[in-house]
Amino acid sequence: MSYMGYKGKGLEFLQKNKIEVGNQIKIYADLPLPYSGIIMPRYEYSDDVHIVLKLDNGYNIGLEIDKIKKIEVESSKVIKKESISPKPKTDPALPRMLLISTGGTIASKIDYRTGAVTPALTASELNASVPELSKIVNIDTEVLFSEYSENLLPEHWMKIAEKLNSYARSEYHGIIVAHGTDTMQYTAAALAFSLSGFPKPVALVGSQRSSDRPSSDAALNLIAAARFLVNANTTGIFVVMHNTSSDDEIACHWATRVRKNHTSKRNAFQTVGGSPAFIVQDNRIEPNKLFNPPKVEYTPKIKFDNRVALIKYYPGFDPKIIDYIISSGYKAIIFEGTGLGHVGKTMHDPIKKAKKKGLFVGMTSQCIDGMVRMTVYDSGRDLLSLGVTPLGNMIPETALVKATWALANSKDSDEMNKNMIENIALEFSD
Amino acid sequence: MSYMGYKGKGLEFLQKNKIEVGNQIKIYADLPLPYSGIIMPRYEYSDDVHIVLKLDNGYNIGLEIDKIKKIEVESSKVIKKESISPKPKTDPALPRMLLISTGGTIASKIDYRTGAVTPALTASELNASVPELSKIVNIDTEVLFSEYSENLLPEHWMKIAEKLNSYARSEYHGIIVAHGTDTMQYTAAALAFSLSGFPKPVALVGSQRSSDRPSSDAALNLIAAARFLVNANTTGIFVVMHNTSSDDEIACHWATRVRKNHTSKRNAFQTVGGSPAFIVQDNRIEPNKLFNPPKVEYTPKIKFDNRVALIKYYPGFDPKIIDYIISSGYKAIIFEGTGLGHVGKTMHDPIKKAKKKGLFVGMTSQCIDGMVRMTVYDSGRDLLSLGVTPLGNMIPETALVKATWALANSKDSDEMNKNMIENIALEFSD
Repeated sequence: MSYMGYKGKGLEFLQKNKIEVGNQIKIYADLPLPYSGIIMPRYEYSDDVHIVLKLDNGYNIGLEIDKIKKIEVESSKVIKKESISPKPKTDPALPRMLLISTGGTIASKIDYRTGAVTPALTASELNASVPELSKIVNIDTEVLFSEYSENLLPEHWMKIAEKLNSYARSEYHGIIVAHGTDTMQYTAAALAFSLSGFPKPVALVGSQRSSDRPSSDAALNLIAAARFLVNANTTGIFVVMHNTSSDDEIACHWATRVRKNHTSKRNAFQTVGGSPAFIVQDNRIEPNKLFNPPKVEYTPKIKFDNRVALIKYYPGFDPKIIDYIISSGYKAIIFEGTGLGHVGKTMHDPIKKAKKKGLFVGMTSQCIDGMVRMTVYDSGRDLLSLGVTPLGNMIPETALVKATWALANSKDSDEMNKNMIENIALEFSD
Repeated sequence: MSYMGYKGKGLEFLQKNKIEVGNQIKIYADLPLPYSGIIMPRYEYSDDVHIVLKLDNGYNIGLEIDKIKKIEVESSKVIKKESISPKPKTDPALPRMLLISTGGTIASKIDYRTGAVTPALTASELNASVPELSKIVNIDTEVLFSEYSENLLPEHWMKIAEKLNSYARSEYHGIIVAHGTDTMQYTAAALAFSLSGFPKPVALVGSQRSSDRPSSDAALNLIAAARFLVNANTTGIFVVMHNTSSDDEIACHWATRVRKNHTSKRNAFQTVGGSPAFIVQDNRIEPNKLFNPPKVEYTPKIKFDNRVALIKYYPGFDPKIIDYIISSGYKAIIFEGTGLGHVGKTMHDPIKKAKKKGLFVGMTSQCIDGMVRMTVYDSGRDLLSLGVTPLGNMIPETALVKATWALANSKDSDEMNKNMIENIALEFSD
């Protein structure tokens, strides 16, 4: 019997019910209708109170053992992973690449071709499930951690940055970071600032897997990322995901200019206020002629300071929330203002207080696209005179990450201010 | 001499410097370079410590009198408004329309054709500066208040709703509300919920006036709005703005599905997750075949309760901010979560507390576009089991406004819940 990755209560549960990884089963739990799917293996760091089912629509779902009312085995035939050579075929002529896995949908969806139920955590499994990869690169794989990206914290950004830094002078041609899509843009920005001038190309790759499509986008994103890393002759941090809703184009977005703009589409990620840095179409890599990455010496500064709040302004926003943030020891506030970079008059007093206490107060726009321009209307000019710093067309989420980074790496508020308005990692564009 | 709208210190200042409304002047104030432009009249409700200049780039700017260092008169020729007949020409064959002005760029930009410096506050001035209007409708005009829309509060939504309600059974064919663009989408949603089933068509119209273009979009938006109100044979609340960056198409967006997605472009407003309800091209009005407005009886419920917070989640978000919000007496929290509707595990405890205290906790996505789907991943299922309510593809800002409205119009938390998930004003689409 195969219980791959299950332990404690989870293992007991499978044994008691005489089911194993790869079985097709029906589970009755919290909903009137049953969940139907294949039992998936668990990750290295998983808890022991859930079992994971790959539903017929392709999604993986975790079911709490205590809530399971009934199990029906639909097929006890184990859906086997392909026979895998103990070592992936390596071709010494191909460049070497590292794949670091941090979790997310991609780490369990890579197997769409083979129907195998193994999460792609090792190089051999990866090569087995995405055979194209072994024709492009020799991949080494490392599991850094295994988290849904909505659970990531600045500590995780630090771990990834330190891991990448340890390979900055390695022989790898490039590095793929497999990552959940929920907060991929935040991590990308954090890497872009903390590893400014990184001497290799890095591709953050995720998978969207919209429920209305049977096939996963993970394999194509990975293949395109490998091609991009090998052939694009560039360096720095990119997010590599579908560019259209079909499979013909993969976009490589520059880390500080990318945003997840749709909950489920494959091409959810977009370069805001411009076009992707590169487009991968089959074997061709099309560079964006306007893309001009910063040429700077590699000076890693891998520190983040969490005392930053991102505040989205809206009519009726309670100024006391700002008072609370000031009194809680925050050092910076990034506003997502309205239009060209405004907040209502009711915010003037708390902003005055924040500036008196020495906080950095930056302005971005909830419009997401376009420049903040605070000299156009009285409202903006009033905020400028209160000491609010306009942040150009920096994406609000990027501005938050930048402030978190700049705060930890500035000796005083003058340097913080300077760092925030300097174009460090192409976070300001046009 | 003409001092239109100036009083107190402002009036003194003009008189002392021997300048009047319509003069072309240069002003040295806070910046090393001077501001060059035409002195504009002030609004009815203006303060007396600023003078308003129409800059050569077309923007209006308010300059604080105390900060003005020097004035140079470049031309004392008064740029006159066109000779206006005391009463606008009316054509009894044309439908009657009401224009309510609430402030914003549009109220002072309407004069781009004539070069006249009068804000379009009266019907006669309107007709004079946008002559096309008088061929479509007979307009009555009313100034409700005069505020930049970033300063609007739920009180202002209420004022506009009450004013519209007072005309619900009037003989006007439709009503235009001139409004600043910064928070126009919030006001539109507030009107859609509070005036559900309103028996006339209402068009919120603003003006974007990007600085790189000499002509204003206000006149074209107004003309299209008038055509739309007269000919579209529909009812309810719409936002009427440019559909493209050129002048050939004006879009009529349904109030609860529209968002300002660019800080400065004329076509900043977009229908999220779909197409506009109507497109106006010259005289043609093209309905969107998928647009199916709710047919409900007119039951105005013009109340809002401000004890709602819109919280954008991000990595490192401090759960204590939620604790603060709970302890401050809030009754509802709308999350802008990540991806399909997630927040990190660190938020579980404060969410539990919020639910224990009876708060409504709703989930939208910061992706803006696409459905929240919380049954797909463990993270979402955990939140569901904590009592978080998924809000489909409701736009986060619309969800905030809806909660503000639903809270004031629900007798208990069950009704609040019911109101939040019911499709009241087409806020859920697909």
